[in-house]
Amino acid sequence: MRWKLTIEYKGTGYAGWQRQEGAPSIQQKVEEALKRFCGQELSLFVAGRTDAGVHAKGQIAHFDLDYGQRPLTGFLLTRALNAHLQGESIAVLKAEKVKEDFHARYDATGKLYLYRIVNREAFLTFDKNLAWQIRRPLDLDAMRDGAAHLIGRHDFSSFRAAECQAKSPVKTLDSVRIEEEEEGPSGREIKLFFEAKSFLHHQVRNMVGSLVKVGEGKWPPERIKEILESKNRSKAGPTCPPDGLYLMRVDYGP
Amino acid sequence: MRWKLTIEYKGTGYAGWQRQEGAPSIQQKVEEALKRFCGQELSLFVAGRTDAGVHAKGQIAHFDLDYGQRPLTGFLLTRALNAHLQGESIAVLKAEKVKEDFHARYDATGKLYLYRIVNREAFLTFDKNLAWQIRRPLDLDAMRDGAAHLIGRHDFSSFRAAECQAKSPVKTLDSVRIEEEEEGPSGREIKLFFEAKSFLHHQVRNMVGSLVKVGEGKWPPERIKEILESKNRSKAGPTCPPDGLYLMRVDYGP
Repeated sequence: MRWKLTIEYKGTGYAGWQRQEGAPSIQQKVEEALKRFCGQELSLFVAGRTDAGVHAKGQIAHFDLDYGQRPLTGFLLTRALNAHLQGESIAVLKAEKVKEDFHARYDATGKLYLYRIVNREAFLTFDKNLAWQIRRPLDLDAMRDGAAHLIGRHDFSSFRAAECQAKSPVKTLDSVRIEEEEEGPSGREIKLFFEAKSFLHHQVRNMVGSLVKVGEGKWPPERIKEILESKNRSKAGPTCPPDGLYLMRVDYGP
Repeated sequence: MRWKLTIEYKGTGYAGWQRQEGAPSIQQKVEEALKRFCGQELSLFVAGRTDAGVHAKGQIAHFDLDYGQRPLTGFLLTRALNAHLQGESIAVLKAEKVKEDFHARYDATGKLYLYRIVNREAFLTFDKNLAWQIRRPLDLDAMRDGAAHLIGRHDFSSFRAAECQAKSPVKTLDSVRIEEEEEGPSGREIKLFFEAKSFLHHQVRNMVGSLVKVGEGKWPPERIKEILESKNRSKAGPTCPPDGLYLMRVDYGP
């Protein structure tokens, strides 16, 4: 029986999704919870590996479980896994039985990432590790103009990490949306949403690093087009911190 | 020179606003930051003392500072205090010069409190200590019907903590608003907003405790009216956890 899990985690303090030596990872913690539940060593296949410090509100993973003739519901599985995840910043939101050929990664038709920026002078309290704090005011219209150049099918080499394992740097960015929360005494929150079928390694954080240069007035919006066309990572802005990045949703549409 | 501070804090791990022996308080931490800044032992007067574990997004306090002939701006004072508050979950959002007779507590004309509930099965990750998790589904319309009985000028003895120091249990509750965030995989967030010139000790948490009984279907909405009229604390629901409570704003209007 194949199961699909919807998982939420606060990535702070974890080495990212993928298992690695000597550092706690999300994959390891969820696989350990599975083992405590059913006594079997199971492997999770994930929709999108996230880096250290990156968060998820709707990560998807699948695994196969032979649970014999005993009845098992999604509700029971969710409860059991969460009981074994107590003390971690990881929770299983949902467990569903899926078809035997469902694949969390290969069947994904879309992903939604959010990048949160808090624009204020005082350091962060509630949002510590959960957003990127920027003191300088940002011009959102300029950022939107810059972002418009990124939409569509492009060679995103300029925004690709050196260690990226994707076969091709060509990806299709379906949309970028830049929203602003009403400004209160706590400052101004800026949310950048990115949608695509798939992303290159560090692509969102590298795009945000360049868009912030535009928002700060250091670069004109057209610079984003030039960077894209150069296909040269060194032309783009820095990789911004993982703190603000959230994998919000993975779609499995028709 | 009298200064007004707007302060934000995550109340988790603090004994509340007020100084006390053997436990870190918000007041103590901000007064220590002030002392490190100007070398003087200054006392803060606060708009509303908050209990252990209760949060604030817009707490207000005032103090008097003799800074000699040296120029001091709100921006510099904010920066200096925040530098001394590094490592704490407390930040000064704003410092403003005010009239010599301004009083953070006595001049307040209104306060806005928010109580956050997250309605879901899985334990909280991002909202740990920052909301009250309730597993059972809540009927918001019933809660709104119940809350309507609380609006206006009443004797709130049924919702008053035994240790409350207010002279009278009669208060005027200006409004109660119950909102729901769009439900995502992470569950349903319910926000209860309460506005009044002032509140009794534990009044918001005691009102929420009773409204949740109504939301769970254990009590009919009219029970809130009966509780209020009984003027008897033992008739009302339990005091709900501090985790979900936020002092959002203090008004000093005409």
